[in-house]
Amino acid sequence: MTRITATYDIETPVGLDHAAAVMAGEQSTGTFIRLASETDALRQRSGARVESVVETGTASHPALPSRKTGATYHRGRVTISWPIGNFGTSLPTLLSTIAGNLFELAELSAIRLEDVDLPADFAHAHPGPQFGATGTRALMGGHEGPLIGTIIKPSIGLSPAETADLVQQLVVAGIDFIKDDELQANGPDCPFDARLTAVMRVIEDHAQKTGKKVLYAANITDEIDTMWRNLDRMAELGATCAMVCVQSIGLSGLRAVRDRSPALIHGHRAGWGLYSRSPDIGIGFGVMQKLWRLAGVDHLHVNGLANKFTESDGTVAAAARAVRQPVSAHGGPACRAMPVFSSGQTVWQVGASRALLGSDDFIFCAGGGIMAHPGGPGDGVRSLRDAAEAARAGIALEDHARPGSPLAQAMATFGKPRIDLDT
Amino acid sequence: MTRITATYDIETPVGLDHAAAVMAGEQSTGTFIRLASETDALRQRSGARVESVVETGTASHPALPSRKTGATYHRGRVTISWPIGNFGTSLPTLLSTIAGNLFELAELSAIRLEDVDLPADFAHAHPGPQFGATGTRALMGGHEGPLIGTIIKPSIGLSPAETADLVQQLVVAGIDFIKDDELQANGPDCPFDARLTAVMRVIEDHAQKTGKKVLYAANITDEIDTMWRNLDRMAELGATCAMVCVQSIGLSGLRAVRDRSPALIHGHRAGWGLYSRSPDIGIGFGVMQKLWRLAGVDHLHVNGLANKFTESDGTVAAAARAVRQPVSAHGGPACRAMPVFSSGQTVWQVGASRALLGSDDFIFCAGGGIMAHPGGPGDGVRSLRDAAEAARAGIALEDHARPGSPLAQAMATFGKPRIDLDT
Repeated sequence: MTRITATYDIETPVGLDHAAAVMAGEQSTGTFIRLASETDALRQRSGARVESVVETGTASHPALPSRKTGATYHRGRVTISWPIGNFGTSLPTLLSTIAGNLFELAELSAIRLEDVDLPADFAHAHPGPQFGATGTRALMGGHEGPLIGTIIKPSIGLSPAETADLVQQLVVAGIDFIKDDELQANGPDCPFDARLTAVMRVIEDHAQKTGKKVLYAANITDEIDTMWRNLDRMAELGATCAMVCVQSIGLSGLRAVRDRSPALIHGHRAGWGLYSRSPDIGIGFGVMQKLWRLAGVDHLHVNGLANKFTESDGTVAAAARAVRQPVSAHGGPACRAMPVFSSGQTVWQVGASRALLGSDDFIFCAGGGIMAHPGGPGDGVRSLRDAAEAARAGIALEDHARPGSPLAQAMATFGKPRIDLDT
Repeated sequence: MTRITATYDIETPVGLDHAAAVMAGEQSTGTFIRLASETDALRQRSGARVESVVETGTASHPALPSRKTGATYHRGRVTISWPIGNFGTSLPTLLSTIAGNLFELAELSAIRLEDVDLPADFAHAHPGPQFGATGTRALMGGHEGPLIGTIIKPSIGLSPAETADLVQQLVVAGIDFIKDDELQANGPDCPFDARLTAVMRVIEDHAQKTGKKVLYAANITDEIDTMWRNLDRMAELGATCAMVCVQSIGLSGLRAVRDRSPALIHGHRAGWGLYSRSPDIGIGFGVMQKLWRLAGVDHLHVNGLANKFTESDGTVAAAARAVRQPVSAHGGPACRAMPVFSSGQTVWQVGASRALLGSDDFIFCAGGGIMAHPGGPGDGVRSLRDAAEAARAGIALEDHARPGSPLAQAMATFGKPRIDLDT
C-alpha cells in the first residue's frame, strides 16, 4: 500500500462529486491554469484520487458562511487518497496535505476530517511510544490494575512547597499517578525547577520507604530548548514522566521531545475543543491521536465518561478505544498509548471505562472523587481501586461494595451519573 | 502592566456573567471543590479576572451542541485577564491558558477567541522577526516597491529539474519572489536537497548576471532536526528564505526554527480555515499572528482581496494591517512582519492591497495573474509592477495604463473583481 487515505464529512452547494474533485485537485497537482508541465504522467503519479462519495443528506441553508452559495447543500462522506511519493512519511507535511487549505475552499460549507488510513511504512518510520503501558508499569516498580491518578489543584497558584505538601498527602493516600495542571508549567510564581525538586524529594522518599515509585507527570510544556533542559533536570532528579500540551507545542514539538526524552510522555490535549466541538468544521480525534502516537506519546487524554465538558460518552469511548488500536491497519508496530480518563470522574465511571477497553491499561484521574471522599484522600484512592477490582472481576459496584467500606461511602457521596455509550 | 487580557465572543445558556466567571475559574485557580489550600490570597494572586461582559444578542437555539441547555442563549463579548505570574512569557503555556480547555466548557454553546492584549514584556522576551521588510530588501541586494511573487505550480509533481526549469522562466520574467507550494516539502518524488540545489543554481546564476537575488522560499516544513539540517543546507547554497507551515509544525516548532535560522522565515498558514471559518468556534487571526510574530516569522500569509477562498475582504484587510501593527500596544519592539497576499490575485488587487497598508512593505503573489498573461510571464510581472507604481502614485489603473501595455493587456484579460472592504 503506497497511498494515504483520508475521509471527510462535507457539505457543498456545487454537488458532492464536483466538490470532491476540487478537494483532490487543491491538495495535490492543482494549479490556476493547466500548465504545459502539468502532464498526464504528472497527474497520474502525483494527483490525489477521489475514492468514494456517499451522500448522507441535504439542507437548504449552508452550515458555515461561504462565498459560493446554492439552492441545495448536499452533505456526504468523501474519501480521497494521495500517493506517498508526495510527502513521504513526514507528519507535518501529511497534516498540510490532509488538513490544509481545503478548510478554506469556497466550494465547501462544512468540512470535518474524520479519519486517516496510513500504510504500515508510516508506523515503521516513526518512533511511536517509547514505553506504553508495559513500560509505564515497569517504571513504577511494577504495578497491577489501572493507574489511579489525580491532578494537582488548585490548577495554578500553589508555590513549589505547597505543591510538594499536597503531593505528600497524595502519596500517603496511595495514589499511583499525579499530574500538574496544564496551566502550571514554568511561571515565575511556581518555577519548574523548584517545583520538580520539591515534588521529587517527596516521591523519592516515598519510593525508598515503600518500593512504589508514584508517577509525577511534570508539565514541561515550553519552547524546544527549554523542554530539553527540563528533561535533563528530570533525569537528574529521577522523574520519569513528562507532560506536554500537544496542541500548544505542535506536532514537530512533540516529536522533538520524544527524540530526547528518557521519560514517559504524557499527552494533554488542552485546546482540543477547537477541533472537536463543531459538527461542521474540525478534525476527529481518530486522526490526531494517530499522529500524536506516531510522534511518541505514551499516554493520551481522552476526557471521561459522563464528563463535565461537552463530549458525548460515545465520543469518549471511541477515543479511548482508538489509542489501543494499531496505528496502521496494514501492519507495522502498533504504537499503542494508554488512554487517560479525567473530568468529573468518580467510582461510578471506573467499570464502564474498563469494560469499553477490555483491559486495565488505562489511567483513571479523579479530583473531587478522591479529595472530597468523606474518609479523606486515602479512602478516596481505596474506593477507586476497589471499584477497579470489581470491574476486573465483572461485578457491579452495588454487589461488590461491603457496607461501610470506602467504596460504599463513595457510592453514597457521589451521585451515580448517566452513562450512555450510544450517544 | 502585569496582566494578559483576552477577549472572546461567546454564547451561553447560563447567563453571560456566570459563563464568564466559569471561564475565568476553569483557566486559573479553579478546582472541583474549594480546597483549604485555595486561599483568598492565592485567588487574589493567581486568579483570572473578568474585566468586562457586553451582551450582543440572544438566540433560542444553541450555535453548537452542548451538554447544558436553556430557553435562551445569550451572546456577548467577554474580556478576561490573567496575571503574568501564572505563565511568565511562555507562548505555549499562554496558548494553553487563553485557548485551552475553555473550548470544551458545557456552559458555552459558542466560543471564539478574538483578541489578546500583551504587555511590553512579552515583546521584549521573544526574538520576533529577524529581518522584517528592511532585512528582506537587503537580502535581495536592495529592492524597491512591493515584492512581486509567485508559487511554483503544479502544487506538487514536478521533479527538481522541472522545478528549476520553471524557476529559470520566472527569474528571466523579472520575478522578485518564488515559493514552494505548501504541499511540496521533502517527498521522495522531489527531495528537498535535490530541489534546493537545482533551484539555487538558477537563482545564483541570475544574481551573478543581474545583481538581483530573487528570493526562493524553500519549504523546509518537517521535524525539528530535519528543519535545522535543511537550514544548514540552505546556508551552504546561499538560500535566504525558509518557508514553514506554521500550523503544521506548531508554535514551539516555529520558535525552534527561528532560534537557528540564518534565513528569512516565510510563514504559510495552511490549515488556517480550521480556526477561522466558523463564527461559533475558533481563534481570530489577530491573536495567532501576534504569537507567530513573537516566535519569529518575517513574512505571514494573509490570503488576498477578492480571493478564491471564503474570507471576506474586510477580514483579509484586517489581517494584513494587523501584522504591521506593534505586537504589544504597551511598548517594546514592534515585531512587524510583511503580509503576503495570495489566492486569485491579479493587477486589479494591487492598488487596494497597497492602499489598506499605506506602504510597499508587502509581498504580492500571483499565479494565473502572471502565467496566464497573454504576453507571457515577463509581461505578467511587468503588468503587476506597473500596477504597483500606479498604486504608489495614487493613480487608478484605468488612468495609468498605456494602451497596448502589459498592464492594459492584463486589465483586459483578467476580470475586474469586486472588492468590498466593509464585508
